[in-house]
Amino acid sequence: MVRFGLIGCGRIGRMHAATIQASRSGSLSIVNDVMEASARALGDTYGADICTNVAEVFGSDKVDAVLIASSTATHAEYIEMAVDAGKPVFCEKPIDLDIARVKACRDKIAGRGVPIQIGFNRRFDPGHSALRQAIVAGEIGQTLQIIITSRDPFMPSQEYLEVAGGMIRDMSIHDFDLARFLLIDDEPTEVFAVAGALIDPSLKAMNEVDCAMITMKTAAGRQVVINNARQASYGYDQRLEVLGSDGMLQSCNRRPHELQRFNGKTTGAGEPYLNFFIERYKDAFELQLLSFIEAVETAAAPKVSFDDGLAALLLAEAAYESLKTGKSVAVG
Amino acid sequence: MVRFGLIGCGRIGRMHAATIQASRSGSLSIVNDVMEASARALGDTYGADICTNVAEVFGSDKVDAVLIASSTATHAEYIEMAVDAGKPVFCEKPIDLDIARVKACRDKIAGRGVPIQIGFNRRFDPGHSALRQAIVAGEIGQTLQIIITSRDPFMPSQEYLEVAGGMIRDMSIHDFDLARFLLIDDEPTEVFAVAGALIDPSLKAMNEVDCAMITMKTAAGRQVVINNARQASYGYDQRLEVLGSDGMLQSCNRRPHELQRFNGKTTGAGEPYLNFFIERYKDAFELQLLSFIEAVETAAAPKVSFDDGLAALLLAEAAYESLKTGKSVAVG
Amino acid sequence: MVRFGLIGCGRIGRMHAATIQASRSGSLSIVNDVMEASARALGDTYGADICTNVAEVFGSDKVDAVLIASSTATHAEYIEMAVDAGKPVFCEKPIDLDIARVKACRDKIAGRGVPIQIGFNRRFDPGHSALRQAIVAGEIGQTLQIIITSRDPFMPSQEYLEVAGGMIRDMSIHDFDLARFLLIDDEPTEVFAVAGALIDPSLKAMNEVDCAMITMKTAAGRQVVINNARQASYGYDQRLEVLGSDGMLQSCNRRPHELQRFNGKTTGAGEPYLNFFIERYKDAFELQLLSFIEAVETAAAPKVSFDDGLAALLLAEAAYESLKTGKSVAVG
Amino acid sequence: MVRFGLIGCGRIGRMHAATIQASRSGSLSIVNDVMEASARALGDTYGADICTNVAEVFGSDKVDAVLIASSTATHAEYIEMAVDAGKPVFCEKPIDLDIARVKACRDKIAGRGVPIQIGFNRRFDPGHSALRQAIVAGEIGQTLQIIITSRDPFMPSQEYLEVAGGMIRDMSIHDFDLARFLLIDDEPTEVFAVAGALIDPSLKAMNEVDCAMITMKTAAGRQVVINNARQASYGYDQRLEVLGSDGMLQSCNRRPHELQRFNGKTTGAGEPYLNFFIERYKDAFELQLLSFIEAVETAAAPKVSFDDGLAALLLAEAAYESLKTGKSVAVG
Repeated sequence: MVRFGLIGCGRIGRMHAATIQASRSGSLSIVNDVMEASARALGDTYGADICTNVAEVFGSDKVDAVLIASSTATHAEYIEMAVDAGKPVFCEKPIDLDIARVKACRDKIAGRGVPIQIGFNRRFDPGHSALRQAIVAGEIGQTLQIIITSRDPFMPSQEYLEVAGGMIRDMSIHDFDLARFLLIDDEPTEVFAVAGALIDPSLKAMNEVDCAMITMKTAAGRQVVINNARQASYGYDQRLEVLGSDGMLQSCNRRPHELQRFNGKTTGAGEPYLNFFIERYKDAFELQLLSFIEAVETAAAPKVSFDDGLAALLLAEAAYESLKTGKSVAVG
Repeated sequence: MVRFGLIGCGRIGRMHAATIQASRSGSLSIVNDVMEASARALGDTYGADICTNVAEVFGSDKVDAVLIASSTATHAEYIEMAVDAGKPVFCEKPIDLDIARVKACRDKIAGRGVPIQIGFNRRFDPGHSALRQAIVAGEIGQTLQIIITSRDPFMPSQEYLEVAGGMIRDMSIHDFDLARFLLIDDEPTEVFAVAGALIDPSLKAMNEVDCAMITMKTAAGRQVVINNARQASYGYDQRLEVLGSDGMLQSCNRRPHELQRFNGKTTGAGEPYLNFFIERYKDAFELQLLSFIEAVETAAAPKVSFDDGLAALLLAEAAYESLKTGKSVAVG
Repeated sequence: MVRFGLIGCGRIGRMHAATIQASRSGSLSIVNDVMEASARALGDTYGADICTNVAEVFGSDKVDAVLIASSTATHAEYIEMAVDAGKPVFCEKPIDLDIARVKACRDKIAGRGVPIQIGFNRRFDPGHSALRQAIVAGEIGQTLQIIITSRDPFMPSQEYLEVAGGMIRDMSIHDFDLARFLLIDDEPTEVFAVAGALIDPSLKAMNEVDCAMITMKTAAGRQVVINNARQASYGYDQRLEVLGSDGMLQSCNRRPHELQRFNGKTTGAGEPYLNFFIERYKDAFELQLLSFIEAVETAAAPKVSFDDGLAALLLAEAAYESLKTGKSVAVG
Repeated sequence: MVRFGLIGCGRIGRMHAATIQASRSGSLSIVNDVMEASARALGDTYGADICTNVAEVFGSDKVDAVLIASSTATHAEYIEMAVDAGKPVFCEKPIDLDIARVKACRDKIAGRGVPIQIGFNRRFDPGHSALRQAIVAGEIGQTLQIIITSRDPFMPSQEYLEVAGGMIRDMSIHDFDLARFLLIDDEPTEVFAVAGALIDPSLKAMNEVDCAMITMKTAAGRQVVINNARQASYGYDQRLEVLGSDGMLQSCNRRPHELQRFNGKTTGAGEPYLNFFIERYKDAFELQLLSFIEAVETAAAPKVSFDDGLAALLLAEAAYESLKTGKSVAVG
């Protein structure tokens, strides 16, 4: 049983709390939020202690591991504090919006031997991970092309956009990680991006985009494209496609149920896709937590490392550089 | 090259004429219809001779084979005339609505050695025949259950209904034949039917039904159900399903094209199904003709025999008997 | 918060325990099993009291409602005891294998005003219930035909078969209930069945069958067919289809995830279906429990009544009668 | 009735001959090939005159229109000859591999008023054209992203590769045209490409590639990606996807028939896709011809113009330039 200290009681923090509580191998010891009311509400729900001072989490002997779900700007500092306290840490992505800060954090915690897992939940989706397993099993021969489609169901709020760090750092970062996950022992080496504020042109004023296509070439010459949009009227669109020399694999979308309609206008018409990530990736969030718990309990390396978090950020930086220059940008 | 004499220039006759003409191995020598204008229109289109007297077709030395697409009441007589003339004959289903007349025809032509093929076109549908081949290849082990769904897109006209002989003789007969086709060396031995005028209650006045479910048990104990309706708002619904001890096979519907729509109300919404049988079974009609031509040219037995035509009619009779008695009716 | 006493700690009991515990509105007070070890294991897992004497459950003032998941033979007695104790009761199906016993139970508890819900979980499946809602909303006009396909993934054990009461009472009963659920204010009035031991002929020795097709006609003349098999190599097959005058609805199967394979032999090949009912109907079991909790808390009538349990049993009896006589059997 | 002179009796020429002959509004007057035997074989099949001297085709008063299906190097010259002869001309793509030659041809025939249609057959595919119509009808609001997937089933022969002009000029050119077709009154203005010889590395020796991803940005800022591969083990993969502000449209693949397999390893497994373009785009080739015939008969502008042929070539050139420079290349 791993006893968690949870930092951050917003939407994603509450989801993690519920996931911990529903697991058989994790429990919630203490919850922390800068807003006491938020901490109290969550603590009361699950019978956990509460605190507004984050140091209490790291200092508690009832905490075996820390789950960081606070705002992005706090991630690197809390990771460092967790490492100092010797507590294994699960941290939501991204580590920080500033690469220099991430690298400084990396340097600071290097060699400390404290397990750190970054929250790239999609790797744990049953369809996505089965796809990777099929590649590893050699089902499609050599990988040639990867197509990742990721579209959110609706535009985030203005408030969110102002702190998210830009669509490519905030949203595409998951897809950069999935590309690396599917490339296995290959890595992207060149990044080219096109992007624009096509859905909401007013975003241009804040230098933000809402649609992007990002092409990458890998060390082995493979080709990857990521198709992103901040809004898809038909629901959260999450698809992977991998073409290999001997076959193709697709991890397709999920619907809330499989009612299909047939009438004078249409046949086989299904429900809009699952909305939003908490629903679509419910299984993935659970499996991600179990994977972290197992790493903590067995002292194994977590399945998603700090360096994975950094690598995805570096690809995002390269994409922004490409947008500026109109050229393919080398990475790695 | 097989030169055809075509009897009957209505819709189904015109379809056969076009199919013959588009084939590389058949040609149209003469067309016959009781309405001279119909014969002339079709003859002119394809450069064929015309006649209103059917005897000319059977007597012509430019005719290698006869295709009977005239009204049902003439089928048995024309089959007999074709046999007398020693001309291979393809005849649309049903042979006759009266079992006694069919049996008389059978007795009259017995042992004459003239090839006869009955127009159960669906056997030649690429999906349906691939399904049968998969059964024969042992892909699903022993067949346990067969589910046949056949629904027309819209109610036929009052005129049609008055001469069609009843839904089960007119429409279900195709499904009885498909059941026998899929049972391979097994045969239905018991028939139970429920039916009603659910779509158009006014049909009750003419003792007609528009929806039916027909259950059959076979000599080997297998189970078959046929689901029929005279109207399906979403298009011509033609499905086969066979459950075996080691798997299941389905021959699914076809759409005119594969455009799919995704929006706030639906995902993966396809076009209504192909309407109507001439469009849906276009490939089947072509392959049926080629199969007949090959039988004629190689003096092989046609793939669908006179006895197949009779067997399907006997099952239809049993279904009507079941409707009257509320009991399962033995056949064979 | 509804505090449950759980009777029966076998597989289905353990599933209910987990469902109660994961819910936000239910808790597990006490668990009962004739085997103390079973009760202890479950009680320890969830911090619930344990007992081997069922009277303790009915007598406990920590129990707001009773969930009966013990063997079928005990259901009727425990329902009566719960009613005597004034405790709302959720009881797994079937109420009893003997209609006379069910009717005696009904008479005994009549007018007592204690809420009773029977465990027809499939009504709560999101796809199945959305299908019903679409019918109620008039999306497909008048219902004409209902096709229910229900096939288990594998044959049950010999031990199970010996106490299950026969495939039609044990398995088809769910489908009889779904037929009634979809017919809304119509009811089956005639039942005809074919069945056989096609998968495992050795079942004949115990007078059991493993495949069945059951046709029903309703008061309004509608047609229903249930296709059952005890084994489907491709997984648990659970489908509903309703043809209406203006459209068709299908509640289709679910897969564990949506990985699809494409290669030289196949395209769009998906995973086998979810196995078995606990996985396939996970959402349904949760929603069923929440519905019962809501009924208890609001003193509303449960969504599935004792009479629904009886009605499904009467249809099963009629099916057995039809198997014996080869005739359609009237019910109701 | 439009009487055709056909130049080129290779595979694509024979397909056009069969399409003309099967149409009700076209006929084949004369066929030409530099190899007399090829011309004779085709001429005999359809009862057309034959010639080896192309001038006979342009000079014949039995020829209303010319269909050019000879080798690419002859296209521009024959277009010019047809225009000189005042005969409407349908010419297979590409017009020429050399942009300068295409422009010279354009200049030469400018203002002559002879209808010219280029063979971008895919525009006439029922699914693809229905997709475009749905965009035009406003079904998905503003177009944001276009994803075109086009993969051949198998690598072409070495001989073919040597004369084809490179994968992007030979194969991607269809996709450039489809992109323009779907963009309607918008045009690509920037092209970025990655490509490589991933399937057959020996192609590098001839400076050829077999996989490519080509990203484009349009005048209106829209984003397009083309995913190409010379080999797909699962069949000819031809998909269009258009994301709009109010929905998404996909034109999906077609199978030869809809048999689906279900067993212990897979569910809903379909047949490999239709192979190859003559089968997959059969309807498109027929509709393309009918469209050209209609343009000839009504003196309307053909649906695919000479300038469309040039525009697609310019995009291919830009893609090659991008491959060389690693930069996005401006066009138009």
